[in-house]
Amino acid sequence: MAMIPPAKDKPLYTPGPLTTSRTVKQAMQCDLGSRDFAFINTVADIRNRLLALGQAAKGDYEAVPMQGSGTFAIESVFSTATPPEGRVLLVSNGAYGRRMARICSVLRIEHTLLDGPEHQAPDPEAVERTLAERSYDLLAVVHCETTTGIINPIQKIGMLAKKAGARYFVDAMSSFGAMPINLAAANIDFLVSSANKCIEGVPGFGFVLARREALEATEGWARSLSLDLLDQWRGLEKDGQFRFTPPTHVLLAFRQALLELEAEGGPGARGERYYRNYKALVDGMRALGFREYLPRDLQGYIITSFVYPDDPKWSFDAFYKRLNERGYVIYPGKVSDADCFRIGHIGRLFDADMHALLAAIREVLDEMGVALKG
Amino acid sequence: MAMIPPAKDKPLYTPGPLTTSRTVKQAMQCDLGSRDFAFINTVADIRNRLLALGQAAKGDYEAVPMQGSGTFAIESVFSTATPPEGRVLLVSNGAYGRRMARICSVLRIEHTLLDGPEHQAPDPEAVERTLAERSYDLLAVVHCETTTGIINPIQKIGMLAKKAGARYFVDAMSSFGAMPINLAAANIDFLVSSANKCIEGVPGFGFVLARREALEATEGWARSLSLDLLDQWRGLEKDGQFRFTPPTHVLLAFRQALLELEAEGGPGARGERYYRNYKALVDGMRALGFREYLPRDLQGYIITSFVYPDDPKWSFDAFYKRLNERGYVIYPGKVSDADCFRIGHIGRLFDADMHALLAAIREVLDEMGVALKG
Repeated sequence: MAMIPPAKDKPLYTPGPLTTSRTVKQAMQCDLGSRDFAFINTVADIRNRLLALGQAAKGDYEAVPMQGSGTFAIESVFSTATPPEGRVLLVSNGAYGRRMARICSVLRIEHTLLDGPEHQAPDPEAVERTLAERSYDLLAVVHCETTTGIINPIQKIGMLAKKAGARYFVDAMSSFGAMPINLAAANIDFLVSSANKCIEGVPGFGFVLARREALEATEGWARSLSLDLLDQWRGLEKDGQFRFTPPTHVLLAFRQALLELEAEGGPGARGERYYRNYKALVDGMRALGFREYLPRDLQGYIITSFVYPDDPKWSFDAFYKRLNERGYVIYPGKVSDADCFRIGHIGRLFDADMHALLAAIREVLDEMGVALKG
Repeated sequence: MAMIPPAKDKPLYTPGPLTTSRTVKQAMQCDLGSRDFAFINTVADIRNRLLALGQAAKGDYEAVPMQGSGTFAIESVFSTATPPEGRVLLVSNGAYGRRMARICSVLRIEHTLLDGPEHQAPDPEAVERTLAERSYDLLAVVHCETTTGIINPIQKIGMLAKKAGARYFVDAMSSFGAMPINLAAANIDFLVSSANKCIEGVPGFGFVLARREALEATEGWARSLSLDLLDQWRGLEKDGQFRFTPPTHVLLAFRQALLELEAEGGPGARGERYYRNYKALVDGMRALGFREYLPRDLQGYIITSFVYPDDPKWSFDAFYKRLNERGYVIYPGKVSDADCFRIGHIGRLFDADMHALLAAIREVLDEMGVALKG
């Protein structure tokens, strides 16, 4: 099967894998031994920088990279940090919240899924009522629910977890690195994100930022060897090495990505770039006649869901394919009660990329004969 | 923390991560969307080529890549393919066999560990006796035990599994791609290997070659969502996509590595190169006065364990460090009843690399004042 590689990469307007910088990819042109000092130093540096991104001090919190996709890291938290016979409360308003329930089901962990409408923030009173009904060991919520792009109030929910004496787990997959988060201030015990989201590395591992005391309390609870977070952390502390072969090249790319995040000015500055991308996109899409699925005050600057236009000539597949042929990769929708598609504004993308996409969208709509009401 | 990258990569005489070709690393200079046609075609091509390496036809066998290190793929087999209340027999002569027992313990899978001496092949009669005592659902063995470098008789053990009606699982992590294996002829139901061994890709995922009928029989058995092999396979069959974000760059490198394996002449030819590396190394090491841990007839051409010299001036740490400073990365030992170190002869290494290493070893021994009896 011959495959002629394209002359240039297509920019990715997706929730990931994302477009990364040339220099991040170039950092992978090196084979390092996993026990070599250079690699061990790289891992240590990555772990320190991740803690700094969480505004946390080593010892209070610990950074633990975990091989696999972000979902592997999510599962590692449930698998490691739920006591035997423990109970978990999942506060959900989208597919990633419901995926947490699926993980708990497979792990045979007793859980309550508080699943609200996808276009609304979780109701704090409902969370409080549920926490009052019985005791929970762990409360989990998604920060930016990629299903819609909604931003959930992790600080507020963290206070409810604290009051109820439950450990607090935040899936910050799509937000960490572009939305400033103070782990301690939000009362977070476990936070998960991935190499290939707002830090703009390449995919291949996720990571957990864990309150050390909460992590150490999980002794003997793990339901998996590969995904045992406590064992992974202890291995790293003992000799700086992963327990099992790490994705060395992906980690080298990630260290370069962390340096570039710092050079950009950190999560605040990166968030501003993503916001400018979002603003350029939404203004342009509205001018074309599209409308967003979410009310504006709940919409984050990570990814936006747009409602399918009400036009007989509209076909998402045709729209996607024509954009792809022009070199623009967007994303299908995942909202359960409305037909939507998604456009991401994260990764190594700038205003100009959003304007280029908008021009291509206008052309494709013309070709398809779709006329939107502006 | 400033890190000046070395002018050139150090060759890696290890069991992995390994030295890879420049072109394999260059294949990672591209950001592909995981739902993009180009990426889906890449994954399909990889899966077909892996089946061909196992001399198997699609439908009889299925190739399922799994994110994470090789251990993640090993765990995915135990976690998916052991029925509830099932029993596993582990035939072991090294650390990787015993790691399988650790995986089963954490997964609360009832298992018998038949752990023999590390310098001997497993005793077929002991295996047969054990299989006669009670019924087992799954029998697992490591092909090349990286602890020592021994090659275990997977065909012979496969016939015993068949006779006993147990599923047969071979960990071919360190051998697949450089030792021809016919899945059906060896009666293998599940075989695991990794991107970063003899196929000479970069680390970031493992893969399972599964007899389709055995895989389909695992319905409802999975003890993990991330590591659910059946669900992973069904996802790939449905739309060609991974269920959760794949390490796209690592997969692009792997496809290039598969093309280069084919260009070299396949597993037979690659095995011959590794054998030449092994022969050059062992002849040279013997001439220097070293001796191998294993008897020659059990020793494979993947990695060799050498016994520490009996000299008061010998120190492995000093030896390792001095070689590393010269740019040669070897590997510590793992044998439990003897002090050994290991030198790997796999990856993008040739005769000349082995001779260069031998010259460096001679120099380092001179510097340390270690005198071996030749």
